Formats: sequence, structure tokens, C-alpha cells
Amino acid sequence: MRNILLEISYLGTAFYGFQKQRYHPTVQGLLEEKISFLLGDEVKVVGAGRTDRGVHACAQICNFTTQSEMSVEEIKNALNALLPPELRVLKALEVVERFHARLHARSKIYAYFVWNEEIMSPFLLDFAYHFPYPLDLAKMESGLSFLLGEHDFRSFAKAGTYRGGTVRCLGRAKITLRTPLLCFIFEGSGFLQHMIRVIVGTLLEIGRGKLNARTLEGILTQKDRRFAGPTVPPWGLYLVKVLYDNPRHSST
Amino acid sequence: MRNILLEISYLGTAFYGFQKQRYHPTVQGLLEEKISFLLGDEVKVVGAGRTDRGVHACAQICNFTTQSEMSVEEIKNALNALLPPELRVLKALEVVERFHARLHARSKIYAYFVWNEEIMSPFLLDFAYHFPYPLDLAKMESGLSFLLGEHDFRSFAKAGTYRGGTVRCLGRAKITLRTPLLCFIFEGSGFLQHMIRVIVGTLLEIGRGKLNARTLEGILTQKDRRFAGPTVPPWGLYLVKVLYDNPRHSST
Repeated sequence: MRNILLEISYLGTAFYGFQKQRYHPTVQGLLEEKISFLLGDEVKVVGAGRTDRGVHACAQICNFTTQSEMSVEEIKNALNALLPPELRVLKALEVVERFHARLHARSKIYAYFVWNEEIMSPFLLDFAYHFPYPLDLAKMESGLSFLLGEHDFRSFAKAGTYRGGTVRCLGRAKITLRTPLLCFIFEGSGFLQHMIRVIVGTLLEIGRGKLNARTLEGILTQKDRRFAGPTVPPWGLYLVKVLYDNPRHSST
Repeated sequence: MRNILLEISYLGTAFYGFQKQRYHPTVQGLLEEKISFLLGDEVKVVGAGRTDRGVHACAQICNFTTQSEMSVEEIKNALNALLPPELRVLKALEVVERFHARLHARSKIYAYFVWNEEIMSPFLLDFAYHFPYPLDLAKMESGLSFLLGEHDFRSFAKAGTYRGGTVRCLGRAKITLRTPLLCFIFEGSGFLQHMIRVIVGTLLEIGRGKLNARTLEGILTQKDRRFAGPTVPPWGLYLVKVLYDNPRHSST
């Protein structure tokens, strides 16, 4: 069997998330349908991150196995002809048989964009979250520092059941500002569902002065979703990059 | 009568152009409807540039007269509450009674964006034109230099009737490149319909090697649309700024 890695980019607002659903178009569903059509096999696609509905990807990594002998260049071009323009295959390459896009991902980088101005830009309706209140960047950065490293992030996850526990390691995080566009960058080996969106929602409350930066420590120890801030909408979130130990597999 | 200036921004792909139409949503139509509803007068809105269907505006300038005494801040806020999010009022200010957004505009700045990469970005489908072929920037810049200044631009306008003749002055033009995003900037006192889109279409043919830069001189003298390159699509085009002699009226 050949193992094919795909680097893909998609407009999150055009799909019902990454994971296959029976009645709605999803990234995984479309990829499996078109790859199976193209190669004749019944193909199962594995994604590095299961992005929620509305979340974008600049360079998501997937893989699938096939017995087809079609060249990776042909696979890429044919898929781009078959898929809708909101979902593009940027790269296709053959990788070692044991490579698994999700299990072997060392870390993922996500970005969250906020338009921090009184009036929302009509060009960013699907691309950033409109937060019109004045923000104190230093307070948000101070808040963020409490979240770095390994913690039980249960307070920052969608309430419910947690497969694999709720301890995660936030390796790197920063906020960049090109007024009025604010960008939060997060890197970690794994994230709970809604985790980045709840963290950003909480940081915005801190920046606006509704919460104290030090309160974040307390929120972490409460291990209860109700203590954190609101979940900001998915269309501000981007899966930017997936990193692997073998740099040949990392997205650019 | 008070004369109110509006600086507005809109997503061109959400409307049937600026100019009012009977059966389709347009920028002028929506503005007149909402302003009339808000102020009680039957208001007529004048725009600095009548952008075509699909063309965006970062800062279009309009004006209308009214007998209402509502403050400009209230007008701005109420209109933003009444209008769809794809059309925003960025500023409202009271100007001298004789001010006319179109007749008094000294010049306008337009930008045209091209995504020059094999694969189109799923985030720019409505925001840039996909041109996947390698381009020679120096040749395009050389071609552009032939178009600067006053010329009869009939070859670069939509074929048909021409109100006000076809001589226009292209005051300033440049190309900037942040690979793979190419941006053409044009400043002039007036533009014929489709003029920028035909110029860009012709420059791309030159950059790709299908036309010679010097040919542009010949195309100008032919005064025939058939000699120029194709019209590139409207969604790459942005009305960026309108300049007036009184800087208080210029868009930012």
C-alpha cells in the first residue's frame, strides 16, 4: 500500500467542519468521496486536526493509503479539479507507510483574528471576530502567560465528555497587533474542543477590564467551563501549521 | 438644507454594483432606502464613483441633502444598524451645501489584486483574481509607463457609447508584489467603464509574454477595444480612496 500525505487549505465557513457527516458537506467527506472516485479504492482520510464547523485551515495535513499507482502530482491536480474552490490541495507527497497525520503530529499552530474597531470591515465578515471595545494588550499578554505550559484546561473546553483527559500543554502563545487587527497565535501538541476559542474569549474579557488577568489561575483550578469567558465564533480561527518530527511532513 | 458626506465601505460581491436598479440590491439603492426611512425625506445619494457589480470599495464617498436635524453620529450609527453588514458607513460629516461627491472629486485611487500562484487561495475567491502563469514584473512596469498621462483610452474601455469622451489622465500607477499577491495601483481624475480591468488584463498578457510592452502604444492609437487584452473580473478591484481639494472631504 502507498501512503499519501495531502496538505490542504479550506474556507471553514463553506463546510460543516472537518469530520465526516451523513447529510452535510464536510472536508473529510468531500476528500474521501473525490479520492475514492479518482483512485477506485474506498479511501479513509485521516486529518491532523478535526477542525470544527466554520474553522479555517491554511495548511491542514491529511493522509490516506491506496493501491493506486497514480503520481502524486496527478492526484493533486485531479483533486483540485474535482473539489470545490473553497477546498484546495496545496501539496501531495508519498510518505512512509506508518505515517499517521494525527498520531504523529508533534504540534499544531492556530491563529485567531479579532477586528478591534468600532465598525466591522465588510471584507472580514467570514475571517475575523468583531470586538469593538478598547483592549489593554498588556493585560491580555499577562493573562496569557498564566496559561503557558501544562495545565488541566477543563475550564476552557466545551463542557461534556473528554476523551484522553483534559490536561494539555500550551507550548507557545503570543498576541500580535496591527491595529485594528489583533492576532492570537497558539502552539501546542493538542487542544481540547473549543479550547482556543474559550481562551480568546476569556482574554478579551481581561483586555476589556471585565476580568482580572490573575483570575485565570483561579479559572484553571476551578476545572469548570462556567468560570471562563464566552466562546468566540469559529470563523476567526485558523489551523495554520502542523509540525512533525520529520520536517518533510510539516506544512509550510 | 444640510449636506451630509458619507464615507462607506462595501463588499462588492454582495451587490449589483453601486448604481440603483429596480429589481436588484445595489449600494445606492440600499443607502437611499435606509436614509429615506431614517430621516423621513426622499433622499437622493450621489457617489464619487459608480463602481460596477462585484467591485469593492474601501472608502467610497457619497453625499445627500436633508432637512433632518439628526446628528451625523446618530445618522452613522442608525444606518449601520439598518444596513446589511456587507455595507458599512465608516464616517458621516456635515459639509458645505455646494459639495458634490462626484463632481468635486479631484482624483480616485483604485487597487487591483491578483493571486499569482498555481493554486488559488480558498480565502481570496471573492477578493483577488487567480492568474497562475509566471509573470515578468519588469515587462509589466514598462508597459504601464506607456499609459501614464493623458491619452484617449477608448481601446481600454467597454465598447459602446462614451459620455464625456474617452480621453482620461492616468496620473499615477504602480505595481507592488508580495509574492504571490500582486497589486496594481491606479490614480486618476476619471476612469472609463472597465478601464482598469482592461488595463490589468492587458498588462497580464504582457507579463506572461503574449504581448509586447511596446504594443501598448499601438493599442492606444488603434482606439478599438478589440486590440487590448481581456477584461479581468470585478472582484479583484477596489475603490481605495477619493481625493478632494479640501482634504477634510478626502477618504482615509
